[in-house]
Amino acid sequence: MSTGEAVDEDAEATYTASVVGASGFAGGELLRLLAGHPNFAIEQATSRSVENRTVGYAHPNLRGLDLRFTDPGDLEPVDVLFAATPHGVSMARIDDFFAAADAVVDLSADFRLPTATAYDDWYDGHDAPEYLDRAAYALPELGRENLRGADLIASGGCNATAAILGLKPLVDAGVVHAETDVVVDVKVGSSEGGVGGGEAASHVERSGVVRPYAPTGHRHEAEIEEFLGLDVSFTVHAVEMIRGASATCHVFPGEPVSTGDLWGAYRGQYEDEPFVELVAGGGGVYRYPEPKAVAGTNYAEVGFAVDADSGRVVVFSAIDNVMKGSAGQAVHAANVALGLPETAGLDFAGLHPVGAP
Amino acid sequence: MSTGEAVDEDAEATYTASVVGASGFAGGELLRLLAGHPNFAIEQATSRSVENRTVGYAHPNLRGLDLRFTDPGDLEPVDVLFAATPHGVSMARIDDFFAAADAVVDLSADFRLPTATAYDDWYDGHDAPEYLDRAAYALPELGRENLRGADLIASGGCNATAAILGLKPLVDAGVVHAETDVVVDVKVGSSEGGVGGGEAASHVERSGVVRPYAPTGHRHEAEIEEFLGLDVSFTVHAVEMIRGASATCHVFPGEPVSTGDLWGAYRGQYEDEPFVELVAGGGGVYRYPEPKAVAGTNYAEVGFAVDADSGRVVVFSAIDNVMKGSAGQAVHAANVALGLPETAGLDFAGLHPVGAP
Amino acid sequence: MSTGEAVDEDAEATYTASVVGASGFAGGELLRLLAGHPNFAIEQATSRSVENRTVGYAHPNLRGLDLRFTDPGDLEPVDVLFAATPHGVSMARIDDFFAAADAVVDLSADFRLPTATAYDDWYDGHDAPEYLDRAAYALPELGRENLRGADLIASGGCNATAAILGLKPLVDAGVVHAETDVVVDVKVGSSEGGVGGGEAASHVERSGVVRPYAPTGHRHEAEIEEFLGLDVSFTVHAVEMIRGASATCHVFPGEPVSTGDLWGAYRGQYEDEPFVELVAGGGGVYRYPEPKAVAGTNYAEVGFAVDADSGRVVVFSAIDNVMKGSAGQAVHAANVALGLPETAGLDFAGLHPVGAP
Amino acid sequence: MSTGEAVDEDAEATYTASVVGASGFAGGELLRLLAGHPNFAIEQATSRSVENRTVGYAHPNLRGLDLRFTDPGDLEPVDVLFAATPHGVSMARIDDFFAAADAVVDLSADFRLPTATAYDDWYDGHDAPEYLDRAAYALPELGRENLRGADLIASGGCNATAAILGLKPLVDAGVVHAETDVVVDVKVGSSEGGVGGGEAASHVERSGVVRPYAPTGHRHEAEIEEFLGLDVSFTVHAVEMIRGASATCHVFPGEPVSTGDLWGAYRGQYEDEPFVELVAGGGGVYRYPEPKAVAGTNYAEVGFAVDADSGRVVVFSAIDNVMKGSAGQAVHAANVALGLPETAGLDFAGLHPVGAP
Repeated sequence: MSTGEAVDEDAEATYTASVVGASGFAGGELLRLLAGHPNFAIEQATSRSVENRTVGYAHPNLRGLDLRFTDPGDLEPVDVLFAATPHGVSMARIDDFFAAADAVVDLSADFRLPTATAYDDWYDGHDAPEYLDRAAYALPELGRENLRGADLIASGGCNATAAILGLKPLVDAGVVHAETDVVVDVKVGSSEGGVGGGEAASHVERSGVVRPYAPTGHRHEAEIEEFLGLDVSFTVHAVEMIRGASATCHVFPGEPVSTGDLWGAYRGQYEDEPFVELVAGGGGVYRYPEPKAVAGTNYAEVGFAVDADSGRVVVFSAIDNVMKGSAGQAVHAANVALGLPETAGLDFAGLHPVGAP
Repeated sequence: MSTGEAVDEDAEATYTASVVGASGFAGGELLRLLAGHPNFAIEQATSRSVENRTVGYAHPNLRGLDLRFTDPGDLEPVDVLFAATPHGVSMARIDDFFAAADAVVDLSADFRLPTATAYDDWYDGHDAPEYLDRAAYALPELGRENLRGADLIASGGCNATAAILGLKPLVDAGVVHAETDVVVDVKVGSSEGGVGGGEAASHVERSGVVRPYAPTGHRHEAEIEEFLGLDVSFTVHAVEMIRGASATCHVFPGEPVSTGDLWGAYRGQYEDEPFVELVAGGGGVYRYPEPKAVAGTNYAEVGFAVDADSGRVVVFSAIDNVMKGSAGQAVHAANVALGLPETAGLDFAGLHPVGAP
Repeated sequence: MSTGEAVDEDAEATYTASVVGASGFAGGELLRLLAGHPNFAIEQATSRSVENRTVGYAHPNLRGLDLRFTDPGDLEPVDVLFAATPHGVSMARIDDFFAAADAVVDLSADFRLPTATAYDDWYDGHDAPEYLDRAAYALPELGRENLRGADLIASGGCNATAAILGLKPLVDAGVVHAETDVVVDVKVGSSEGGVGGGEAASHVERSGVVRPYAPTGHRHEAEIEEFLGLDVSFTVHAVEMIRGASATCHVFPGEPVSTGDLWGAYRGQYEDEPFVELVAGGGGVYRYPEPKAVAGTNYAEVGFAVDADSGRVVVFSAIDNVMKGSAGQAVHAANVALGLPETAGLDFAGLHPVGAP
Repeated sequence: MSTGEAVDEDAEATYTASVVGASGFAGGELLRLLAGHPNFAIEQATSRSVENRTVGYAHPNLRGLDLRFTDPGDLEPVDVLFAATPHGVSMARIDDFFAAADAVVDLSADFRLPTATAYDDWYDGHDAPEYLDRAAYALPELGRENLRGADLIASGGCNATAAILGLKPLVDAGVVHAETDVVVDVKVGSSEGGVGGGEAASHVERSGVVRPYAPTGHRHEAEIEEFLGLDVSFTVHAVEMIRGASATCHVFPGEPVSTGDLWGAYRGQYEDEPFVELVAGGGGVYRYPEPKAVAGTNYAEVGFAVDADSGRVVVFSAIDNVMKGSAGQAVHAANVALGLPETAGLDFAGLHPVGAP
């Protein structure tokens, strides 16, 4: 993790970028990140619902930006188009997007899974299956090779990102394999539900909950299983925070694994990763991964503990669902795709103290 | 579940009762419950730290009670003594308690486990092992027989109570047995930490957390394993609420179990229980158990879902840790022990709307 | 204030009651209170939006009630009809209400102001001005005489109730009069906005706010000015809680007033009031009125401080807006009107610890 | 307000800086800001309580900084020393500070008031009154002239900063003068109390409050009165947030003032200010100043409304108490003093959505 890191001075290229679906939460974060990014210039921010309003109307933190929402039907040519639209929009409009842009970074689930069959199984099918092979799944920690030069990037789902970051070192180390029982118990904030929402999303009803909102069958399970190559038992709870996703993975390796082995696996995977911090059992108040420690940032915290009696390994992973789980991951992936410094535009270190952002 | 149920008109007996450790959270709730109970009259509320203060000084909701804290060393004779002291105090003072009272209801962990060996394993041994056989574990839903006429009652731990209520119907139905993998992933509020606490318990640091505070090795695991007769993998997270414990149990039965079988098991166990409500998948906002729906009450909500792909059963259980998980359970157990109506003094139905109590 | 007070044994009368608008927050609390009230039997709970559902569908704390919502158009005859409908409904349906009931307790603003002119000034006029003289404003602490035997009761507004309770002793003592500058700065929880609400009421946008939602011109100002006979400068802020209204009144008496005089005024007014507690400057954590100390109850806390330099008197008043500011006040007023013990059905003392209920 | 503004390319000077009291909240924010500042290099971060620990131990967002806390007694020579110590420490150690540093920026109240008499009146006197004339009060919006070249800067108090920013345009426009009644009703987050704190600061007791914590006599009143030249009636409430201070000023001008006049006064004062945003009555969710809209940033939001009936002007002002009200203001003032671009290191725009940071 790097705080206040200087951006590579040689990376002076500037790319034009537009954000489709910019009045939503991920869209607003994309605008904030791109506005502060040394290598991007914002061309358009589209929104059907608040067309012609300033971006500050929807996002009060962006009142300083001199930019108004435009009609999503009128896309100007740009280098990179970021799409932060609800599921189904990008697959329907992907030809339009490529007509306007050289590269598309999609933050929805529309291009994350590899086959039309997977969309039949987990969603309502796919409108543009011919693009699925072309899409690179974003999560850079899964392997950057796919992303370099990619022109269609599928930014990962927030819960999937948290789970994958926690489990991947165990998969690579052979501790977890296709026969291992893995429970992924996720706790998420209310921003996962997006703007608006009905009565269940109202402050009165949503405040203070520990609410099983996807007891089984959450669609992010498909991403986890696809990219880790193993089945997981996946349950998602809504808890009292706005941003944040925390995955606790309970893993039952067939044979004993030592804490030293685990440190080896996690350090080996992440010690050179700019956005992953290992946090496991030091002193002080913050001993394990916590979403509030990474709120507003592109950082992930990952840690683990071993249950000496049972051999169970408990893995904790915490991210900001709107950042590392969405807009931050998308910008990170675009940085990799374009050959920019990976941390460009993403160096905000987060806040302390901080409540439940 | 019964709302506003009339207390049995024939139960006119009145018992004197004292609360030791009455300035703590469970102690304050005991005072509130006993003051509103038709069959108890409060004799003493002891507290070393705020001796001579009114009980309203520590508990603002009790300003209407004309009662002051007294020295815990000077116990008046009573019928029932409730001890809400930190771990270790009751085992050290149990002879004093019985010198003052015909019956003792202990809310700490001091008499929950059955053997001195168990205290060696999970705690720092036991000072008064000769009392362990005499103690009846409180949770009435585990079986009331032990409680009737008991003179030493060990009120269950909050996290253990939530887990046991969720899992017991599966154990009794044979769905879960000693070889079944069971993960118990618990989320709790800050009142579990008791009055005071250091920096980690401060509002600034504790607000908005999803914090792994007992990744493994939480002592309540001992109670669960003892009273259900099976090993569980137990992890506790602190989340943003004051009261409340929510247990999500991920269970992997060896063979398929249908939703109908599960309804049968849960209804069979709980349909006559006055304080357990089955909540599983109806419509509206509140579809599964949630701690905020039972905040301030002695009710537990229990529900479940089946993961069709994997056969996993996910069980949800929600209680108020200070009530069903502590003071409410203690009064419920005392009601059973004394032959009073079980719901006497415990009929508060809870609030809606409600935040994070 | 009385905790766990025994209900008058002679008050054995039972009245039938219905709640119109029972799926809203105040309606749900009315159901809870009436279900636990020794002198009421619930006949109907009406709701257009969730007709035929159980009351537990809308109010999870009432799952134990065997009662379903019915069509508000089909009212059965009852002794008392409680109307918890949005502004405008009661004035439109008041003839229907009296066709079904001997007495009507209205929780909306429809009958609070005394003249049609006042409704022209502050609302959009009045549909049934002939009833205005007949209506008794509920707040019992303003004077019970009007309420005894009343058959149309207008339960007071939550913010007005908090302000009136704080200021009335100063008005009666002559400290505040028509020429006194009085600022009433109110902080309220999200339940004031009622069920649903749009984007501003969503958890994401409403959480953690200190939001000026009525900088000037809030309609409750009319009630305060009407019932205290003086002009006030009134501003309302939304803050992070679900229930609760806290009024801070900054008063500038023309001449010095001592703390002793103030204690005299407040004690004189409230020492016999069953639901008002004076809280001013004692030790401990809870030194002044706080909404969380009365959450879920019909109690009000009132206190004050004197600014020695300027002579300003600062008055603090805290209530639960859904209880003392709505459903609790309505039941209290009905108790007075029917000659029942004032505290019947209203003896819940509140919780400690408690978060932001 | 400027989002993502490029730092002046010519400002290439680098100054060494140390932070005394760096384990506290303001100290941590100073470290974060200085680490990301193009013109500062951190030399030391001192802390007596966690000496030798990494800064990430106290501040989890700074785990990426390779820096350990050192003994506050051993100060290395630096260009600028930032002191974020409790009241009384800086006045006792000011000679030591100047022995180590060319310039001192003090975040405590120790050098804010202009005379020893003022410290006798509001505090417990002053140990180093000979420095009082030398100190420049930080708030740059009060006038930058004092700050240019200053070597002792007293960074303003959070509540005073919020109030002064709201009222100053009215003072300068003559709307408010020494005879005007002004009520300043402030709502603040829990970080104002600093690290630790006792029972009242615990999560359990502090959550969800609207708590009058300084009914009268708060020391920041002295700053407001000193720097605006008028008396104010000042009351501070603790509310549920971690960061943030919101001041609502109720002003009673002797004669009518129009909304147009007010816009003139506020625009005249603030249109060129880089860190003040006027927010008053536009559409959407965020119509008036709110602390959560500026959380984590050095921005202030200021707005107003006119009460047509009474002529009262209601002014709203919102800041992040740890940033604009402390560490951000200090860095801003240092930028001015050193001739650096004012926004250097302070361009974080804040987050949306965001909870109660």
